[in-house]
Amino acid sequence: EIVDAIQRAFEQGSLTGRRIIVTSGPTHEPIDPVRYIANRSSGAQGTAIARALAALGAEVVFVTGPADVPPPVGVEVMRVETAREMLAAVESALPADAGVFAAAVADWRVKEASMSKIKKEKGTLPSLSFEENPDILATVCRSEQRPRLVVGFAAETDDVVSHATAKRARKECDWIVANDVSPGTGIMGGSENAITLIDGDGAEEWPRMGKDEVARKLAARIAESLS
Amino acid sequence: EIVDAIQRAFEQGSLTGRRIIVTSGPTHEPIDPVRYIANRSSGAQGTAIARALAALGAEVVFVTGPADVPPPVGVEVMRVETAREMLAAVESALPADAGVFAAAVADWRVKEASMSKIKKEKGTLPSLSFEENPDILATVCRSEQRPRLVVGFAAETDDVVSHATAKRARKECDWIVANDVSPGTGIMGGSENAITLIDGDGAEEWPRMGKDEVARKLAARIAESLS
Repeated sequence: EIVDAIQRAFEQGSLTGRRIIVTSGPTHEPIDPVRYIANRSSGAQGTAIARALAALGAEVVFVTGPADVPPPVGVEVMRVETAREMLAAVESALPADAGVFAAAVADWRVKEASMSKIKKEKGTLPSLSFEENPDILATVCRSEQRPRLVVGFAAETDDVVSHATAKRARKECDWIVANDVSPGTGIMGGSENAITLIDGDGAEEWPRMGKDEVARKLAARIAESLS
Repeated sequence: EIVDAIQRAFEQGSLTGRRIIVTSGPTHEPIDPVRYIANRSSGAQGTAIARALAALGAEVVFVTGPADVPPPVGVEVMRVETAREMLAAVESALPADAGVFAAAVADWRVKEASMSKIKKEKGTLPSLSFEENPDILATVCRSEQRPRLVVGFAAETDDVVSHATAKRARKECDWIVANDVSPGTGIMGGSENAITLIDGDGAEEWPRMGKDEVARKLAARIAESLS
């Protein structure tokens, strides 16, 4: 039994000694104390990836926005709400061997969120101006502490591969995990995912499978890449 | 044991034969397929109220937005996402003896939500225009099928009682359950609530207590009012 356990640990330990940052979930950007803008994201895929990496022996720092699913056990959890908080958490977690940026970060935040609830007045509509949020993926890629392997995500609704390929070049990351989140696919909030992995060699389409399976497959690829 | 059960059913049955609509949770108003505007609301208080009303024997129709907590058992659940869907569900559930409108409905929605993901382009910020959502509470109060007892909620961050008293008059509802959701109170997303019940006689401040206890106390008041 002990021999089994050791062997299992050995087999699964292909990421032992590797520190990997995983972001997950949406960010919430406040409009006022009771309203916010968010991206749809259950956090299910990011959570599954963190779990799969930890199962291979990695030391995982899991930076999560307000997700629907609980974080995995056996990882260091950092809870954040906004994109700016997420970037700060990621920067504080560097250096790392790899970064997997699965969170659905809001691209924009509301300029000067109100400190008190905006009252609804008859005939008056709120006017919101926006400003750009920090680009966490690009910032990490250009950081002096850039991890050896940086994996970005691209949730697209059309021209998935061309958008994701352009994103990879623009952000200067190593891989992009792209998926089609059009409402018809049932991927958003569902238990399955159909991704295309884009690296310097091109695009590799994976068959539709469970999010846990996507996570295990991706974790194995990461282990291979870091070995 | 059977006698006990019958007695318990009798004691708890002060709402037997009463049909009560309870709304709960936030609404999500789409910006595009991956982004939305929401109100902060875990759905915890509305869920507790529905559970407490059902425990008193009421036939509860539970109209819920995307909440963090699961709906109670023993109620009819109608799941909605937007304010317009919530109004349609409520209207389809009328007539009823009472309506408890605990949901945190978004006052505004984005005019012409985009069918595809709005791309982030360098230096370009999205411009969102808004339109007013239907006012579910006021609509029900002015409906020909107005329940005998209509209870609204007011989540405020300042001047709680005066804002809530004005809201009661404006909406023409019977009671307003008002609370202070300022970030410092820990009420939003927490397990406790401190409410003020406003009716035609004035404002009654309840001590801070568990959301389940608020729910039981409110359900008892509703039973009294409908008896």
